[in-house]
Formats: sequence, C-alpha cells, structure tokens
Amino acid sequence: MNFCSDNTTGAAPEILAALAAANDGAAMPYGNDDFTRRAEARIAEVFETEADVFLVATGTAANALSLSVMTPPFGAVFCHARSHIQCNECGAPEFYSGGAKLVPLPGDDGRIAAGDLLAALAAHDPGVHHVQPAAVSLSQSTEAGTVYSVDAVRAIAGVAHDHGLKVHMDGARFANALVALGCSPADATWRAGVDALSLGASKNGAFAAEAVVLFDRALAKSFAYRRKRGGHLLSKGRFLAVQFEAYFADGLWLKNAAHANAMAARLADGLDGVPGAALHHPVEANEVFVSLPEPVIAGLLDDGFQFYRWQREGATLVRLVAAFNTRAEDVDAFAAAARRHAGAVPARQGT
Amino acid sequence: MNFCSDNTTGAAPEILAALAAANDGAAMPYGNDDFTRRAEARIAEVFETEADVFLVATGTAANALSLSVMTPPFGAVFCHARSHIQCNECGAPEFYSGGAKLVPLPGDDGRIAAGDLLAALAAHDPGVHHVQPAAVSLSQSTEAGTVYSVDAVRAIAGVAHDHGLKVHMDGARFANALVALGCSPADATWRAGVDALSLGASKNGAFAAEAVVLFDRALAKSFAYRRKRGGHLLSKGRFLAVQFEAYFADGLWLKNAAHANAMAARLADGLDGVPGAALHHPVEANEVFVSLPEPVIAGLLDDGFQFYRWQREGATLVRLVAAFNTRAEDVDAFAAAARRHAGAVPARQGT
Amino acid sequence: MNFCSDNTTGAAPEILAALAAANDGAAMPYGNDDFTRRAEARIAEVFETEADVFLVATGTAANALSLSVMTPPFGAVFCHARSHIQCNECGAPEFYSGGAKLVPLPGDDGRIAAGDLLAALAAHDPGVHHVQPAAVSLSQSTEAGTVYSVDAVRAIAGVAHDHGLKVHMDGARFANALVALGCSPADATWRAGVDALSLGASKNGAFAAEAVVLFDRALAKSFAYRRKRGGHLLSKGRFLAVQFEAYFADGLWLKNAAHANAMAARLADGLDGVPGAALHHPVEANEVFVSLPEPVIAGLLDDGFQFYRWQREGATLVRLVAAFNTRAEDVDAFAAAARRHAGAVPARQGT
Amino acid sequence: MNFCSDNTTGAAPEILAALAAANDGAAMPYGNDDFTRRAEARIAEVFETEADVFLVATGTAANALSLSVMTPPFGAVFCHARSHIQCNECGAPEFYSGGAKLVPLPGDDGRIAAGDLLAALAAHDPGVHHVQPAAVSLSQSTEAGTVYSVDAVRAIAGVAHDHGLKVHMDGARFANALVALGCSPADATWRAGVDALSLGASKNGAFAAEAVVLFDRALAKSFAYRRKRGGHLLSKGRFLAVQFEAYFADGLWLKNAAHANAMAARLADGLDGVPGAALHHPVEANEVFVSLPEPVIAGLLDDGFQFYRWQREGATLVRLVAAFNTRAEDVDAFAAAARRHAGAVPARQGT
Repeated sequence: MNFCSDNTTGAAPEILAALAAANDGAAMPYGNDDFTRRAEARIAEVFETEADVFLVATGTAANALSLSVMTPPFGAVFCHARSHIQCNECGAPEFYSGGAKLVPLPGDDGRIAAGDLLAALAAHDPGVHHVQPAAVSLSQSTEAGTVYSVDAVRAIAGVAHDHGLKVHMDGARFANALVALGCSPADATWRAGVDALSLGASKNGAFAAEAVVLFDRALAKSFAYRRKRGGHLLSKGRFLAVQFEAYFADGLWLKNAAHANAMAARLADGLDGVPGAALHHPVEANEVFVSLPEPVIAGLLDDGFQFYRWQREGATLVRLVAAFNTRAEDVDAFAAAARRHAGAVPARQGT
Repeated sequence: MNFCSDNTTGAAPEILAALAAANDGAAMPYGNDDFTRRAEARIAEVFETEADVFLVATGTAANALSLSVMTPPFGAVFCHARSHIQCNECGAPEFYSGGAKLVPLPGDDGRIAAGDLLAALAAHDPGVHHVQPAAVSLSQSTEAGTVYSVDAVRAIAGVAHDHGLKVHMDGARFANALVALGCSPADATWRAGVDALSLGASKNGAFAAEAVVLFDRALAKSFAYRRKRGGHLLSKGRFLAVQFEAYFADGLWLKNAAHANAMAARLADGLDGVPGAALHHPVEANEVFVSLPEPVIAGLLDDGFQFYRWQREGATLVRLVAAFNTRAEDVDAFAAAARRHAGAVPARQGT
Repeated sequence: MNFCSDNTTGAAPEILAALAAANDGAAMPYGNDDFTRRAEARIAEVFETEADVFLVATGTAANALSLSVMTPPFGAVFCHARSHIQCNECGAPEFYSGGAKLVPLPGDDGRIAAGDLLAALAAHDPGVHHVQPAAVSLSQSTEAGTVYSVDAVRAIAGVAHDHGLKVHMDGARFANALVALGCSPADATWRAGVDALSLGASKNGAFAAEAVVLFDRALAKSFAYRRKRGGHLLSKGRFLAVQFEAYFADGLWLKNAAHANAMAARLADGLDGVPGAALHHPVEANEVFVSLPEPVIAGLLDDGFQFYRWQREGATLVRLVAAFNTRAEDVDAFAAAARRHAGAVPARQGT
Repeated sequence: MNFCSDNTTGAAPEILAALAAANDGAAMPYGNDDFTRRAEARIAEVFETEADVFLVATGTAANALSLSVMTPPFGAVFCHARSHIQCNECGAPEFYSGGAKLVPLPGDDGRIAAGDLLAALAAHDPGVHHVQPAAVSLSQSTEAGTVYSVDAVRAIAGVAHDHGLKVHMDGARFANALVALGCSPADATWRAGVDALSLGASKNGAFAAEAVVLFDRALAKSFAYRRKRGGHLLSKGRFLAVQFEAYFADGLWLKNAAHANAMAARLADGLDGVPGAALHHPVEANEVFVSLPEPVIAGLLDDGFQFYRWQREGATLVRLVAAFNTRAEDVDAFAAAARRHAGAVPARQGT
C-alpha cells in the first residue's frame, strides 16, 4: 500500500481506454490533429472563457514554460519558500527563463499572503542593479496539502496586477483544490486574477498530461516556439489530447479528485487520537502531513506501508498522499496499524 | 492514406498492450521503479555493452540533452546542413547547451563526409575569439532517407576523436538504418566510435519513447539533473519503460523497421518509370524523396493521399514516409495513381 | 611598425587629455553623472535624432547586447558568413540572446546582398519547428574593409522591415565607413533603416569606448537591465563618457578615420604593381587585404613589420590595417620593402 | 562632499600617470601584450603562489565569470542574503552560470557563519529534483562594512571543501579588508581555502580594473572563452594591466585602503555621542552604517553632503563610504554638522 504520492498510480481505466480508442488510423503530428483541437477547445469550455491551451507531458515543463513567458531573464518570480518551482524542479524555471530569480516568500501552511507580497514589492528598488518583479506563482493545492481560498487568490492577484506582475498558478493538483473549494474552474482561476494555469492531470489519473492554460492570451505569442525548443512538443499529440478528453468526460477529473480528498480526510480522521500523532497542516485536499513517533513509523514500514518521511525541526514528518484509486480499506488499515504501533486501543472501541 | 511521416501512426499493438499491462499497481515515480531498471538494462544488453540510459518522451529532448553534455556553452557542434538539430528543433540544442553554435557541413544525400569535417577542424583557430569544436552529430538514418555505412561512421568518428570531439548519433530512425545495414546495434554505434545515441522508438511504433544511450559513461555525470531541469523526467516513468520493453521483445523494433523500409522500397519501385518522376536520394531506409510534375501532385492530393511537399531548386519535391503499419496495397495504390495522373500506361502492362 | 589592427594603438592625445581632465572631483557612479548625460545627448545630436544611448567598453558587448533586444531566444539573426558576430566573438550573440541562431549569408567583399536576404526569408517556414527570423546585422565598414553604400543599406533594411526584422549595424569601424561615404551619420544609419548601431570608438582613437545607439527606442526598454546583468555597466561611468565627448569635439572622429583611410589607400597604391601582389577586396576604408608571395611575406616579417596572415583558398592572405596614427613614412617603408623583396624596380622609376 | 560610495572618486594620480605612460607605441591587442603578462605575474607574486589571472573592467563581470566556472547550470551558490551577487548585480551570476540558483544565508553584520552553511548542506537532498550545492561566495570586506577573520574564512572554506563546494571571495573591497586584517594576501585567501578571488581595484583608486585570481587553477580551463563570450576581453588590454601595475607599486593599494579605513573610523568616532546616532554594524573597513534622526539627515543634505539612505526596519539608515582620497576635514565637517543638526554641544567641548 503506497502512500508516497499520487503519481505512484497507473492511469484511470477511462483514460487508458481513451488512449486505446485513439490508436487506430493516421493523425497529423505535433498537435496538428483534431484530437488536439478538441482537447484545447474542451479545456477553454471547462473554464468558460477563451484561452490559449498548450499540452505537455510534465508538470515541470508546464510550470517552467509558463513562467518563461511571464518574466524577462532579469525578472523576479515570487513564490512560496517551499513551492515546487523553488524546491523540486532542479532549477527548471531558471533554465527556461534564461536565468530569472525566484524570490521565496514565507507563509504558514504552504500559502503566501498578499501582505507579504505587497511588502516585498513595496521594498523593491526599480534601479538597474536589481532583478525586476515580473510574476507571482501560487500552488493550488499547495505543497502543504492546503488550499487557497478564492478570496486569497484574488487578494494576491490584486497586489500582483497593481504592480505589473503576472499571476501563475501551479495546478499540479488543481482538481483537488477545486473540489475542496466547491466553485467553478473559472471562479478559481481567471475570475480571481490568474493569468496562466498549469493544469495537471498526471497526479489525478492520467498517464502524463498537463495543460498550460493562458487566460492572458498575450502570453501565448511565443509559447509554441518555446515549447518546441524545450523539446516538449510531442509528435503523436493525439495521445496527450485524448487523456484530457477522457479527463473531463462525465466529470472524471472531479470524481477522481473528490475520492482522493475523501481518502485523505478519512486518513486524518483515522489518525486522530493516535498517541504522538500530530497534523502539521490542515488536511484540505489529498495530502496528510503528520508527525509520528519513530516506533510507529518503523512499525508501519515493517508492515509494508510506503510513504515519504523527513526530519523537520526536530520531528519526523510523514507525508501521506491519497490518489484517485486509493482504497478505503487501505486507509483504514494504515490508521489501525498506526494506532496499534502506538500502543493505543483500537479506535472503534476507544470512542 | 497518409505518407506524411512515420509519426502520423498510432502505436504498435504490442506496445499498446504493454502499456495496458503495466497500468495496475503502484510503482515509485520519476524512474525509480523496476520497469525502468529493466528497460535500461535491456537497452544496454541490446547494445552488448555497459551504458548509461536515460528515457525521455521526445527526440528533440534526446538530442538536445545529449548535446548539452558534449559541448560547453562556447562550443561548436558540427552537423549536416539539413539535419534535424540544425533545421527542425527550433534551436533546442542552442537552448540546452547554453548557446553553443551548430556548424552546418554540406554533404550529398544528407551525409557529411569525414574529409569535410577534417577540413573544418584543420581550419579552426583555437583562440579565444572563436567557439571551440566540441562534438559532431550524425543522423542515422539521415534526413534524406539514406544511411551512413559503418565505415563512414567510423571515419567521421575517427576524425572527431583525433580532435577531441565527441560523437553523437541522432537515431530517431535508428532501427531503419540498422535493418538497412544488417549489422549489430553495437557495430553500428559504439564499436564505430559513437559516444551517445538518441535512440528513437516513437517513429517506429511507440507512443512517445526515446532513449539516450551514453556509451561514453563520463557523459552521464550531470545528465539526470539536466533531464529533470529540462522538464523531461516523467513522473510515471514505468510507461516510458514498458514501451521499450515491448519494442525489443521478439525483435519488434527490427520487424517494424524492416517492414517500413520494404514499403519505401516498394514505393520507389512503383514510381520507377513514372514520367516526370525522379528520385532525389537513394532510398535506403523508410523515406522516398521524389520530384513529381505538378499535375501529378495535384491529382494525388485530390485522390486523398497525404504527404509533404516543398519547392527546392526549382522542382517540387515530395517526401513519402513509410511506417511500421504502412500497407502494401496503399503503396501500390499511390504508385498506380501517380502513373495514372502522369498519363502513363499502367505499370503492369507497361513492362 | 604594426599593421595588425587598429587596436594595437594607444589612445589619441585628445582622448587621453579628456580622461585626465575628468579625473578630479566626485561624480555619481553607474552612469548617473553629468558627463554621461552630456555624452548621450551629444551622440543623439551627432545623429540628428532622438535615440537611446548606452555606453559600454567593448564592441562585443555592444553587438551582443544590441542583438539581445532584437531577437527572442528562438530567433534567427542573419549576417555575413565572415562577420565579426559570427566568427570572432566566441558566441557572445548566442550567449546574450539566450541561444538565438546566427544564419550566415554569403556575399562578395564582406557584404551581404538584399536579394540573398530576401531569398532566405522567402524560403522561411514560420512553423514552430524552426527558429524565427528576427534581425539582420550589417558590418559597416565590413570585415573585408569595404563599405556598404547607403542604397545597399536601405535595400537590405527594406527587406528586413518588410518581414518584421530589426536592423543592426556593427559599426566597430563606423567612422571609417562614414568618411568613405561622405554622408551624414543620420543618412548612413536611421534614415537608411538602421534600428540599432554599435558605434565603435576604440579602434579609432579611444581607450575603450563603444556606444549602442538605439534609433528604434522601443528596443531600449530592457537594455539597461541587460547591460548591468552582463556586467557592462561601469561604476565610474564618466570615463566612458568623456572619451566620447573628446571623440566628437572638433571632428576628431572624422579626422582620425580620414587619416586611417588615407593611409590604407596609400598602402594599396604602394603595393600596386608589386609582382605577385593582388588585392582581395577593394580598399574602401582603413584595411588592405592583399595576397603576397611567401618570400615577400618572410622578408617583411624579417624587417620587423607586423601583420596578420592566414591561408585562404590556397593563397597567403595578409591583412594590413591603418589607424588614426599610422605614419605615412611607415606605409611607404612597407611598400618599398615589399617591392624590394619581390625583386621589383622601385615604383617611382617603374612608372 | 560625497560619501555615497568609493566609486564616486576619480582615479589615483599614480594610476592616471601609469595610463598616460603606457599610451605610446603599439601593443598587441586582447591581452597578448607584455603589460598584461607583467600584471598577471605581479598579481601572482603578490599572492605568493601560482595562479591564473584574468583582468576585466567591472566587479560584476569578475564575480559572475568566477562563479560561472564554479557551478553547473543546475548548481546552488550559497551567499549572504544581502550580498552584492544576490542583491546588486541584476542577476549576473544567474546569467553567466546558465541559470544556477543563489541560496541566501542569514548572518549578522553581513557575514555568513560556517554553522549555517553546514546546516544548509546537511539538509540538502542530492536527488535530481534539487539544484546541487556547488559553491559558496563570501564578500571581503562585507556589504555591511565588516571583515571576516581569517579563521572565519577558513571555517567556511573547510565546510565547503568537505562537501565538494568551491569557495569564491568577492573582493571588491579586498584591500580594505586586508589592511584591517593585517595579514598577507596569501593568508587572507588561498591559505584559508579561497579558490577564486574577485580582486577589485576600481573602488580603491583605479579607473576600472578588476582581476579574477584563480588559485584553483583547474577553474581556469574555460575562463578565457567565457570572458570573451561575455564581452569582457578588452581590445587594448594594456590599459587594464597598467592600472594593476601602478596599484601594487610602492604599496599604493594598501596605502589607499588604509587611508579609507582610517577615514571611516574617524567618521564613526566623530558621530559617537551624536544624539540619535547609532551604528548598525561595527566599522571594520571603509564603510559606516549609521541611523540618524530624520532632521539630522535633512540638515546634512541641505549642507550639501551626499550619501545613500534607506528605510530598514523602521529606522533611516545612512551609509557613508570613505575612499582613498577622502579628506579628514570633510569627515570632521560631516561629524560636526551632524552634531550641530542634532542640537548637541560641540564634541570637543562635550568631552
């Protein structure tokens, strides 16, 4: 039972079926095919607006390419200090932007605050000696498994736009956030001020499919060239496209995300009251960050559960990620095992 | 009937089946899975050597990443004037290398000659004012549908190594070349002096799968970081890996390539004697470059045949590419239609 | 007697004097000083227009920074196959542009032809697979010591602008060209369609002073940041500025260039009729390209004359460059020595 | 009276004289001259070791080029959060390195601590998702006007080398630090573990002259190409070289720095006891950071004193920099004026 990440799964059966169904016949390469046209149109429709859409295979590509059209090489991109673009992409944003600088901002539970962005911008010197603020990037849901409220996004975007910055949203887990917010895709993004969205599907049931959605269409001017130049224009583009078609068909993306979120909540509930267990962040999407006593961790690993762990500020922090296909019985087994290793009475009887 | 390219096809059924078979269960992400380990080992085994293998999804990524570990930013990469890296990758090699310079060499039928490389290197000035020769890149098979002999590769690699250059082979259609050569993968590459191979599968029956094979293992030191930084490390790595497993199982790659080559040869034969038709290059792999009279082209397009055409040196040149699943009857239909539009008596009766 | 280049000289006495005169007192750094303001205004005045001016210390910086604001990273810059930016700047344009591609054009006597540019642009494919034409760069005077006529510049610029390209002029030896043309600086540049000029002074009597003159002021938007980021914003900016003030005072720049051109012409005259001597290019500015028999070259070197030589197309080509302070007696001595080594009767008696 | 920076001055008379003296005669360009050879040898001699030396015109170029040979594009460079490379070079290190990431470390008085570096390195994950530690950069003297002890440098370098990092020292004000330390140049640098030094002269009496001194000679391999490619190889190299010759002749560099340091100390003494004045950092080199009441600042500006000021943590901070030619009477006048504007009795009488 693997709780390491939502990318340790295979693809949802609906998406595998779509891939197989699209395999026959010829289609023009490099995205010049009807599948791609349909997927692009479908994504714009889902977001109730006109937008330029570019499909790629990885989230790092989606993020780095998005930022590359938002900042000059001498620009600054504000982001959370623990954001994926800052910590987990081996410098891809710097590479694609030609050397722009990421400026980390602090923030509880993985969220930056509009006030901190405003303070950073107010302190900025426009002189030639300094990189120039160009964009802010938000992760939705965040690296801490939390979700920005629409108001929070709007506040940050407002500050950004007031100062001439563009607003990027890293939506590797956008569906999980959307389900948590319970609003429309449009309300969660461009209506709140988002200029570009990295819309992930890989972590929510696709094989490998991410879409860059440019609500600010002026950003699209050079995008296609940059995608090709980065090696991210797939020759058999239909296979990216059909993953997205299936992703949106019959609300699959929301159904998958709702399930994953529910499993994370169930896990948090199951760990509630386990001696020594303490949540590090509110569980708002599909991730649980919890510290556990070392013996409990050792016991869980012995049991064959898989998850990432690391030391942070003296404690051992465990990350548990639920996916579209996480089974309730595995979640319950994990919680029960944790409780057992912690020497606690079973939860059922304990209540 | 689409002769535009060998990437207008879907995937071979064996590869689709492998993808589906690998879909169940959890696997660690980012290539830290058994599928990937097996695929890497299998590729090394196919080449009868130890090698570092890195899987990516596009040929442009494979080429640009390969070159990025072969040249410093102030380096020069020699290549054919019509090579894919020079003409068709929107500057990806320049991007990934940090601004290295591609130096185009002439050469008949898409092949550069060892003598021309030697002359370029002999004329080179090592002073600081000039970019410094770092690598040579060969396409095998070439952009002209021809194939370098093993001796030709060895001669070029010899010149390169004598001058401290690394040797890259763009093998987007490596299987087609290999079948044409009739030698072992090892003989076609590292035994002839190739240091790094972009081994393509996408054009020969895969969905999207390319492997960088580093025979010169010193080149591997920074490769993994560069792949990640370029956004080319897929999270669900197993799906790249199993494409390669199926590719090599039961000689699928050679079977597919042999079929494509045979269909190209059949097409060339079929066009032989068509009034106004003239081959531009020998047909040695799976591509036919032929000039045709405008009315013939118009007629073929009206018939629904698809192919690329362009003006070159006053003539209209048509490229016809055969793939793993090109049908003999379609080839014959094309040839017959060309003959018909050219006002010729049918071939069968004509001979 | 050194004919290697016009940068083997020291500075003109007027420019040394200006430097010394500006040495007292405090001045704000990084170009925020009155000297710099005056120099920028003076340059605009010399060109009879409003322009954005940026001072730097090297011609390579002037060229590479200019091009960096004219092309995206996926752009193509057309230039002569033997131009300085293509052959002698170790890839600086590629570096500063983030990996743009220089596209060499042929052309007699160091000049590209409008027709060749037009043909290259007509053959261009705007698809995403290809770098996109962004700029053309002309050297004035050229690397062959020749000069574009104003009409030739206008024709090339017309083609460029018709296709959306910007026009750069590498004016490392602009004053030499200007004197040869006999027209105004404005006529030689922006009135003929030049958008940005690298205006060199170092080769014509300055210590180290080059100005980027942006006639197309939209190009200036990011220039100052790029200059700083490239390390080309000198802290004591006054010392760049006063070199230019002195350069334009009392027509020093034209006087210096006229002298250098006259000395080159005198040298060409002196070599006329020397057995085995043959000019490779018309002598239109301050450089003489001449082939000489090996014994003549050996004799001249033995005599202590210094110059660059290289093999080209079977012959030994010698470059002789005259500077602002080249002495007529040295020129005459060179010619006489060449004649002597060639075994010829003295020129005076020969005519 | 300008206390803005030590680069608001002209050049020292000895350096102007050296420039003038070198102006006659021809010298080979691009550093291929005897002046340059002598200057390089002299610098190595001053540091009592063999070293590769490269002359450039700006400190930003020296720093960015140095770092470019110490880090791959996917590397991390640790530095103080307020260091020049992090805050004041418009991203030059990112540009020259191809997108490496600067990792800011905290630290009192502009100094980073070995323990903080060690903690950062201990927490580092070598996986491909993360930029990889490559170098640490120290400013000596620091941006806070303080000086690292030799022991502190040694401790940081030890941690760095233990983890495979290179050690860079930004010595824009190296002479000021050296005078403060009272040790030999060798003891202050390579003997303490410094691999590369940006040795500034511009702020200590030169026109524009900085030397990169590579004690780790393996770093020199590509340096010359990178310098040229960056546009930092001056054609008339002799004029950089002779600035350094004069800089070291008769101990000019130490004399100049000692004077500047003494003037800063005198200024700090003079401000001691001024009501509302508070030093922000110890005055160890040639800079004074002091908060002053707003009316005092306004009065000083009205008097014609020039200096930089900015808001930091609620207070108005003033930076006062002394240079090689700062006059004691100007320092005393500043202190007296501050005292007067603060409504204090004159210092002499007050004690």
